[in-house]
Amino acid sequence: MIQFYAPQILETGILPEADSAHCCRVLRMKERDEVFVTDGKGSRFRCAIVDAHPKHTALEIISEEKIPTHWGVKITLAVAPTKSSDRMEWMLEKAVEIGVDRVVLLKCRRSERKVMKLDRLEKVMISAMKQSLKGVLPELTEVSSLENFVGSIGDDCQKFMGYCSSEYSRKEFVKECTGGKDVVIMIGPEGDFTPEEVEVAVSKGFVPVTFGESRLRTETAALYGVAAVHILNQISRD
Amino acid sequence: MIQFYAPQILETGILPEADSAHCCRVLRMKERDEVFVTDGKGSRFRCAIVDAHPKHTALEIISEEKIPTHWGVKITLAVAPTKSSDRMEWMLEKAVEIGVDRVVLLKCRRSERKVMKLDRLEKVMISAMKQSLKGVLPELTEVSSLENFVGSIGDDCQKFMGYCSSEYSRKEFVKECTGGKDVVIMIGPEGDFTPEEVEVAVSKGFVPVTFGESRLRTETAALYGVAAVHILNQISRD
Repeated sequence: MIQFYAPQILETGILPEADSAHCCRVLRMKERDEVFVTDGKGSRFRCAIVDAHPKHTALEIISEEKIPTHWGVKITLAVAPTKSSDRMEWMLEKAVEIGVDRVVLLKCRRSERKVMKLDRLEKVMISAMKQSLKGVLPELTEVSSLENFVGSIGDDCQKFMGYCSSEYSRKEFVKECTGGKDVVIMIGPEGDFTPEEVEVAVSKGFVPVTFGESRLRTETAALYGVAAVHILNQISRD
Repeated sequence: MIQFYAPQILETGILPEADSAHCCRVLRMKERDEVFVTDGKGSRFRCAIVDAHPKHTALEIISEEKIPTHWGVKITLAVAPTKSSDRMEWMLEKAVEIGVDRVVLLKCRRSERKVMKLDRLEKVMISAMKQSLKGVLPELTEVSSLENFVGSIGDDCQKFMGYCSSEYSRKEFVKECTGGKDVVIMIGPEGDFTPEEVEVAVSKGFVPVTFGESRLRTETAALYGVAAVHILNQISRD
């Protein structure tokens, strides 16, 4: 099954240019062929092609299927961009495949990279959503500082920060995080969070955690955290 | 902390060429400087440089520390190489970071890639071992066929195969896999295992499993499986 992405499908009934080209040029689809299209907002539409135009393929919606995220809880991953943008891109691809609701790019004191190309990252997320047949495109946001971010998170969810140094007592993530509840995970830059950043986060209810005894790269820790939340949810479900 | 790799350290007391260059050229280390070196067999040595030669740095061992794998159980990941070798390389890097004992490259009926450059993959594993400060280099092997592989696995470990199609009844991996026991996980190619391959594996005690409701790429499923084993072990440990 191939899934296309058209955020405006309901308004326009048109596939965006890249998806139109893929549909009509690469896959050689023709009028009356049926395709599946998601709006990235939780719906998948079965459509018939009415005009197989390689730049703006026109569609007629036959039926709509609601496909909300299947994990039930809201998973927010706040991560400091890595020096290598490749590492961020594949981490994002995998996080979307496994399942995440919101990705926040954190600016930390020791961040080796302060700016990321958001449009490039969004392209990666869109193709991962299409490929993994999801119907909701995770939100991608940049925040000006860790202080602003931790201040913006309410107390109705579990709040964790992966922390490498043993300056602060850390708990084991998999023992602290419980299934069935919203989760926010913060992952610091290569140089870790500063003690000041840890203090600010702790004052806002974030719990410093370790993911285990392995020293993980930023992008690996981020992915491990997202996977752990899903696994804990799977275990808690009966 | 930087860790070098010298599999023959005990016999030769010499850093291999690449590590010698990194030590003396890049890091500008000199005689009497101390370095940490692992042999990839479970030991880390504190050494003093006696000859800072950029091609064959000579070392004197000061002390030896045993650093076995910290997860206790033996984790074997048998995976069909992906079409893109990049995807295999980063999956291997992450699997080594998170922790794996043995990686087997499976030749399956529907494998899109039958051969991999083993030396290239081993380089990736070595640098991941060094970077994540591990002391044991996972074993990397190629097997001629899935039949041979499943036949080679004894019954003293948990045996699972990730399977996408619903032709066979599948169990939930996280509910089937118990912590504290050796695990073998097989991950099929992009085209999935064939029904014949599933039958052969099942006849050898492999349990078809799903990792959840997300459709994961081969390399993502492999990584998710390895992470799940660690998380289940962390949960079961008190």
